Amino acid sequence: MKIAILGGTGPEGSGLGIRWAAAGHKVIIGSRLAEKGEGVAAELKAILPGGEISGSDNLTAASQSEIVVLAVPYSAQKPTLEGLGTALKGKILVTVVAPTQKPKARVWRLPSGLSAAEEAQQQLGDSVRVVSAFQNIGAHNLKDLDYVADFDVLVCGDKRDDKQVVTRLVEDAGFRAVNAGALQNSSVVEGLTSVLIGINIRHKVKDAGIRITGI
Amino acid sequence: MKIAILGGTGPEGSGLGIRWAAAGHKVIIGSRLAEKGEGVAAELKAILPGGEISGSDNLTAASQSEIVVLAVPYSAQKPTLEGLGTALKGKILVTVVAPTQKPKARVWRLPSGLSAAEEAQQQLGDSVRVVSAFQNIGAHNLKDLDYVADFDVLVCGDKRDDKQVVTRLVEDAGFRAVNAGALQNSSVVEGLTSVLIGINIRHKVKDAGIRITGI
Repeated sequence: MKIAILGGTGPEGSGLGIRWAAAGHKVIIGSRLAEKGEGVAAELKAILPGGEISGSDNLTAASQSEIVVLAVPYSAQKPTLEGLGTALKGKILVTVVAPTQKPKARVWRLPSGLSAAEEAQQQLGDSVRVVSAFQNIGAHNLKDLDYVADFDVLVCGDKRDDKQVVTRLVEDAGFRAVNAGALQNSSVVEGLTSVLIGINIRHKVKDAGIRITGI
Repeated sequence: MKIAILGGTGPEGSGLGIRWAAAGHKVIIGSRLAEKGEGVAAELKAILPGGEISGSDNLTAASQSEIVVLAVPYSAQKPTLEGLGTALKGKILVTVVAPTQKPKARVWRLPSGLSAAEEAQQQLGDSVRVVSAFQNIGAHNLKDLDYVADFDVLVCGDKRDDKQVVTRLVEDAGFRAVNAGALQNSSVVEGLTSVLIGINIRHKVKDAGIRITGI
């Protein structure tokens, strides 16, 4: 599949990008500035010479792809999605956004009372199929393709078929996906990010994650 | 320690009670009706003949204990705590309450915008030390004292010392405790209960739980 990663220059977006390229997908690293996207794409190709990885601005990346991943900080979510409505129409938007605010170890309730994923869905309307995933994984080890994860990726969304597509992307990235229910439940998954940041701090580790047991 | 379990006649409260009694604590099963508390205490003593387990009404149980556990359904939280202010003064109240609403697999945002644990803290005031724990464990296997858990218990609270006391109680029940931060973060832990109920339904299991990885 052709996957655009908006804000793909950050550690999580680029880490997922190289993993999907390694699994045979075509990856476009999107950025506010095309040059930045191209620069990070070149760095990733240096690690994975055979990978089909290119870079461009976010709008071009979204327009040229079947699946679009939103990997920007929460503060950039709304402005990034503005103007992308047409490019995203009919597509799955996978959001990895987890809002945090200082102190980051405290769960932040957004003023809207919604999750960031629901805010994206509201902004874009029903013609875009928003699915939430990857909020609880550390970016630290993603570029190490030999790294074997012991955590799960929780997937929230309102359409079963869309979650199945994202489940395959999670597996292609090397992780186990667990269906965590409706998009509304993303508030819990996003809040877990703050909880895990706190656990990282208290345990002096970088990549606390969660695993679903008993299944 | 002397531990009262308010609403201790339910599966989670009674399951924790027998585990703490097995670890040498004195357990009082509290109920709205003293006879019900006494009845369940008798059942638990039949399973664990050496255990120090008694039953009474909630107020008597709270008054006679050093630690009080709130194990009622969310709908009973507020009425149960009414009139217990004096009995709870200066004590740790461990709340296991996780609000759910149909459909239970959907995270329920309380009208207050708070977690159930924060609502309890607000209702009781600062002289009661509320700590949140045990929301994400299935009650199914608790009474099987040979059951070895692979899940963790997340502990939220605003005072480090109180969380350490509760951490020891978690360990005495046979589980690993993980400090999940401030009481505010309990909204995530409580919401996880709904997510886990959904996972139980989809995977046709009874006791999905969570484990923190990477620590």
